[in-house]
Amino acid sequence: MEKSEITKINIAEKFSLFSDHWNPRVIGELNGQQVKIARFLGPFEWHHHENEDEFFMVIKGEFELHFRDKVVTLQPGECIIVPRGVEHKPVASEEAQVLMFEPAATLNTGNLPDSERTRKDLERL
Amino acid sequence: MEKSEITKINIAEKFSLFSDHWNPRVIGELNGQQVKIARFLGPFEWHHHENEDEFFMVIKGEFELHFRDKVVTLQPGECIIVPRGVEHKPVASEEAQVLMFEPAATLNTGNLPDSERTRKDLERL
Repeated sequence: MEKSEITKINIAEKFSLFSDHWNPRVIGELNGQQVKIARFLGPFEWHHHENEDEFFMVIKGEFELHFRDKVVTLQPGECIIVPRGVEHKPVASEEAQVLMFEPAATLNTGNLPDSERTRKDLERL
Repeated sequence: MEKSEITKINIAEKFSLFSDHWNPRVIGELNGQQVKIARFLGPFEWHHHENEDEFFMVIKGEFELHFRDKVVTLQPGECIIVPRGVEHKPVASEEAQVLMFEPAATLNTGNLPDSERTRKDLERL
């Protein structure tokens, strides 16, 4: 990559480019990983990722991450890492803006590759 | 990892645990990558990373990322990815709090492994 192609990424500006929910966009790639952003609203599906750990950071709003044994509420400036294999279900009672780091191969619905919530070939912003 | 060991990470709280500059702390690990935070103040050294791309996000304050052909100023909510091999030099005229995402093997001074600024065996918070 030419140095002159390196540009900063403004997260709020990237969020302004879409409004749908549970449809992650890719805003950066590095070391085989992707930086993704998504708007969460309502309950997502219970799922796990066989081979990928996932990092979530709340940018705006808040959401609950449900595990089988507890619920963790995440607010702006808070993050969590969900290790591979651990079942989880995001739930946002109001809209949340969330940033994720995960391997490029990660499917949003993990072990449910054909859910109606599954999103493949993510848009790059 | 037991599900009950999964806890959220509050970034501001992690920053409250140290005050020195250019000494990254590890706040999370996933997929062979680490999430690090550091306080930047003053000029760092010109360096590059042979095999690692680096992601920087400003949490508080601002800093300049100098490249050989330009300077990019980063503020809260802004990120940048520096591809491997690209020389760069962070400069913070006032203190900045910065989050980084990079391979666990990444040395802060890259191709200068014995700089006085080099930090190995990073503290985990």
